[in-house]
Amino acid sequence: MAINRLQKLWPTISEKGLDSFLVSQYENHRYLSGFTGSSGWLLISASRTILATDSRYTEQARQETQGFEIIQVSGELGNWLPALVSDMQCHRLGFEATHLSFATHQKLSEAIKAKQFKIKLIPTTNLVECLRSVKEAEELEFILKASELTDAAFEHVKAVLHPGITEKEVAWEIESFLRQNGSDGIAFDSIVASGPNSALPHANPTEKAIQPGEAVLIDMGGKFHGYCSDFSRTLYLSNDLKAINPQLLAIYNIVLEAQLTAIDKIESGMTAAQADQISRSVIKQAGYGDAFGHGLGHGVGMAIHELPTLSSNSTDLLADNMVFTIEPGIYIAGLGGVRIEDTVILEKGKPKMLTRSAKDSFKL
Amino acid sequence: MAINRLQKLWPTISEKGLDSFLVSQYENHRYLSGFTGSSGWLLISASRTILATDSRYTEQARQETQGFEIIQVSGELGNWLPALVSDMQCHRLGFEATHLSFATHQKLSEAIKAKQFKIKLIPTTNLVECLRSVKEAEELEFILKASELTDAAFEHVKAVLHPGITEKEVAWEIESFLRQNGSDGIAFDSIVASGPNSALPHANPTEKAIQPGEAVLIDMGGKFHGYCSDFSRTLYLSNDLKAINPQLLAIYNIVLEAQLTAIDKIESGMTAAQADQISRSVIKQAGYGDAFGHGLGHGVGMAIHELPTLSSNSTDLLADNMVFTIEPGIYIAGLGGVRIEDTVILEKGKPKMLTRSAKDSFKL
Repeated sequence: MAINRLQKLWPTISEKGLDSFLVSQYENHRYLSGFTGSSGWLLISASRTILATDSRYTEQARQETQGFEIIQVSGELGNWLPALVSDMQCHRLGFEATHLSFATHQKLSEAIKAKQFKIKLIPTTNLVECLRSVKEAEELEFILKASELTDAAFEHVKAVLHPGITEKEVAWEIESFLRQNGSDGIAFDSIVASGPNSALPHANPTEKAIQPGEAVLIDMGGKFHGYCSDFSRTLYLSNDLKAINPQLLAIYNIVLEAQLTAIDKIESGMTAAQADQISRSVIKQAGYGDAFGHGLGHGVGMAIHELPTLSSNSTDLLADNMVFTIEPGIYIAGLGGVRIEDTVILEKGKPKMLTRSAKDSFKL
Repeated sequence: MAINRLQKLWPTISEKGLDSFLVSQYENHRYLSGFTGSSGWLLISASRTILATDSRYTEQARQETQGFEIIQVSGELGNWLPALVSDMQCHRLGFEATHLSFATHQKLSEAIKAKQFKIKLIPTTNLVECLRSVKEAEELEFILKASELTDAAFEHVKAVLHPGITEKEVAWEIESFLRQNGSDGIAFDSIVASGPNSALPHANPTEKAIQPGEAVLIDMGGKFHGYCSDFSRTLYLSNDLKAINPQLLAIYNIVLEAQLTAIDKIESGMTAAQADQISRSVIKQAGYGDAFGHGLGHGVGMAIHELPTLSSNSTDLLADNMVFTIEPGIYIAGLGGVRIEDTVILEKGKPKMLTRSAKDSFKL
């Protein structure tokens, strides 16, 4: 698996005029090597594939990877990387510019200069991230499983939700359910936001007890074999329409229409900005354009946010086997907010639902 | 609170010849402002204290902070920061060089140049981290509470540990106990490593069932009001000394002596390297120097790893009210490992235990 991915990556590295490439970002090195430790670097050339890590992880690296030379290193990159790259007879080393810090780059440059190695450091962006955005069959299986766990957790939430339960208690119900039903944990800290709190798109669960008729925005995801799912629903704790603020009900229907329209119209070959525009124009026409402050969605995989980025200024191109969220929302300070989100995969040109829970806005 | 911290920080900023300072690192901006959102920047000058965040978080930022101008921004730093700094009539902007990525710095530089602003970007390291390493009374309370939760979780683990339980089940017992007893969650993914797995200092819990007589290394921590505790014990699932590998028993006693000696001899005013040396020399004299591959410890606070860094090449100076771990370990591939770790605070020149669980090596 990992070796195939390196083979897919190499032409891109080569095209950029690099003879070697340093992978420092966590999900990127995990994707390419299978190594799950939190500290490690991959160093790749045409002839060598090295995984460098410190003494805490060398044993684990040997167990988890195939086809990599495991090298034990310690201290800063500048201490060991230049000699290694020089030993590989490489001179044009690509690095991940959105991940490597300014300070690390600076120290590495200084070390190369001090040791008089002929190595040029060349910034790159999203080389591995682009590969990761198009999922392989095994990755899809894991995301589908994470999505099934998420749907099941939502069924559980609907069963335990009642007036008086606190946001934190609901968040813990989600987490316990996911963990006890085979999830690796949670893909991210769940959002459970009721009443006015739901107007904060990224609220932390509080000790607030949920009241009858309030909107409850729940955003959560399971995780399976390192792969995430991402999902939101907004519920009202009432079967009595009259108990619910009419503006919130209207907003619910607008967000639902915005989401269903996007699911219907998004196609492979579109830019991610065009996809975003589909939902955005529904919300704008309903008069809530300013209240939809975030992008329509984002890629989902080992990271909860990855490529493609579905936003109004994104140039990412949507393609088959990309997995991403479709999550329009409207948020009114003081009143509350609504977001409806599913994880989908582009298959034969069209979105196919991975999370599948119903979107009825009332607690059954 | 936050305002006091800014007042403590300002002389350091000023000493570096900066007239403004950009805080991008999460725990740093949370420490200074109280804002818990995951996306935000602080921009500080002598006359203005700005918190810039995107539309998802502006409402939350208003609720969580005092004394900050909340500014809604979108997109990359280069889009909005140069004009803002110029508007503040600042010209020497410090940034956090170990956090800001190479690419972000590069784009920001280019934007400043393109717009012909007279702003010099000046790299800084650890300005806020140094402040954070010395804890205030309220922070200590939170860490003590997190430590009490950790000790209680360990009592729970000892009660449920039995031959046949899997590493993953134990990890879940730890997490559930912590969450159900008031912890914000877990400070980090717990390590539960049995038998040969304990030779991996940072093992992930597996489906492996724990066998009688095996070493079980447990590393875990609670979290309270955003503050962590960090703690390890190594247990043997047997009351029968003969069932335990004699080398592992010998190692246990060496690690225990190394830890107790460090607790006894560490003093405020020492360098962190001198502290590290205390345990390291005990382990070296016992012939296991090469098997203690990591540093003696690390600061603990909002981040699970922060300053001071207790390692053989650290120049950090230990001072009163610093909170850190003391965690020597010996790891033998194929056989197993032992680590004993407590979180302590330096008080009146000496370490005071924050985690207090017994260090008997047998399950009672």
